[in-house]
Amino acid sequence: MQPGSQGVIEIRVRYAECDPMGVAHHSAYPPWFEMGRTELLRASGRSYRDLEAEGILLAVVRLEVRYKKPARYDDLLSLATRITSLGHVKIEHAYELRRGSELLATAETTLACLDREGRARPLPEFLSQAGS
Amino acid sequence: MQPGSQGVIEIRVRYAECDPMGVAHHSAYPPWFEMGRTELLRASGRSYRDLEAEGILLAVVRLEVRYKKPARYDDLLSLATRITSLGHVKIEHAYELRRGSELLATAETTLACLDREGRARPLPEFLSQAGS
Amino acid sequence: MQPGSQGVIEIRVRYAECDPMGVAHHSAYPPWFEMGRTELLRASGRSYRDLEAEGILLAVVRLEVRYKKPARYDDLLSLATRITSLGHVKIEHAYELRRGSELLATAETTLACLDREGRARPLPEFLSQAGS
Amino acid sequence: MQPGSQGVIEIRVRYAECDPMGVAHHSAYPPWFEMGRTELLRASGRSYRDLEAEGILLAVVRLEVRYKKPARYDDLLSLATRITSLGHVKIEHAYELRRGSELLATAETTLACLDREGRARPLPEFLSQAGS
Repeated sequence: MQPGSQGVIEIRVRYAECDPMGVAHHSAYPPWFEMGRTELLRASGRSYRDLEAEGILLAVVRLEVRYKKPARYDDLLSLATRITSLGHVKIEHAYELRRGSELLATAETTLACLDREGRARPLPEFLSQAGS
Repeated sequence: MQPGSQGVIEIRVRYAECDPMGVAHHSAYPPWFEMGRTELLRASGRSYRDLEAEGILLAVVRLEVRYKKPARYDDLLSLATRITSLGHVKIEHAYELRRGSELLATAETTLACLDREGRARPLPEFLSQAGS
Repeated sequence: MQPGSQGVIEIRVRYAECDPMGVAHHSAYPPWFEMGRTELLRASGRSYRDLEAEGILLAVVRLEVRYKKPARYDDLLSLATRITSLGHVKIEHAYELRRGSELLATAETTLACLDREGRARPLPEFLSQAGS
Repeated sequence: MQPGSQGVIEIRVRYAECDPMGVAHHSAYPPWFEMGRTELLRASGRSYRDLEAEGILLAVVRLEVRYKKPARYDDLLSLATRITSLGHVKIEHAYELRRGSELLATAETTLACLDREGRARPLPEFLSQAGS
């Protein structure tokens, strides 16, 4: 994987994710971004579950979301997830959430690679060297 | 602790717990029941966190909820949690959720005591022998 | 639709749905069952979103779940949803959640048909007469 | 209310909010910030529930969180919520989440005032004029 690696997933908005305004609650989006990262990693031939079993954790240390238009119950959305930066310890992603051609939200996250004791450790080679 | 041990906690309904009908979603209730169990255990002088640190897990194996009247955003509810049965490996609780004197829901759960590998193990002594 | 109508959906367990035991938290299951109902209704040619727009609400009044084996992060599960009873005002479903051939959980729900003011009303014809 | 208005609430981390890393999942925090806003508004003599009943909605249009240290199950946290900017239509808050003296996370949100049709509308007077 390398900066620019991108994947797209579909998300059906669940009823339980919607609030009294009738739209997806803003706290429903971060798990969607996490699904985007999970599938992007899987497309690279590795699963996050395997990484975690090896004691390699990726913790979100920064999250920014800009909500532009509401998503509604039962909407079928597409989420594009892209790696924007790969450092020694940190990895950054950017997200674009769409309903058809309509852009509903954009977001960015920074993840830090940790060991089981919560100490920073280098990203695994298949991630960090991929851009070279 | 023993069958009949009871505790009451207050719960303020969160906006994120409510759905497009404007009421608390039915999936919001099981975490409230879990809070009731946590505080009931704490009142006995132990915390579930400590139990888990010792490798003693309590897993929900059965849940039944009867929703009688809706709870709404910002409602201040009271939840009564009571131990109804203490076996060798399993513990049962019953719950009554109220807004003032109005009964909103009743529920029952069965928890099984497990070790870290997910195998059934006896309940810790302070729980199982308490009734004697 | 009629008693016996059945549908199967796939569910990928989300990281955010899992708890410190490393398994899907028991409160993650009711939204899955709701997804099963949503897709079963859609297969009948109607969407729950349309029903709700017409002022026909389906509220969960009873939920029972039996958790047999844990579901884990990233598991790909299959959920079978089946209508077991269709009354004048109420509809009952049964659920079987599997990972491959392994049965992880079974559940039952009862839903009541309500109008926008929360009063019981007859199920819409396409549901209630379907069995005739 | 005016820029600088501040309130502090206590939050007990729920088991269901924690993930397989054993810490509160990053998606658990935005509902806590919302609780902070709800209580800050209540302290001003109004409830968000009343506002919404009058057709005045406050929608999150931007969220940024910096996660510094993990929160764990059963931790008792304190959340300080502060208004940092009050415009014609938008209101900004800043948040500091602590466990004792330890700073666990900081965050900022921007909310836009909407009517029931989702159109921008001026903030209610008691909010927007409060700073004058």
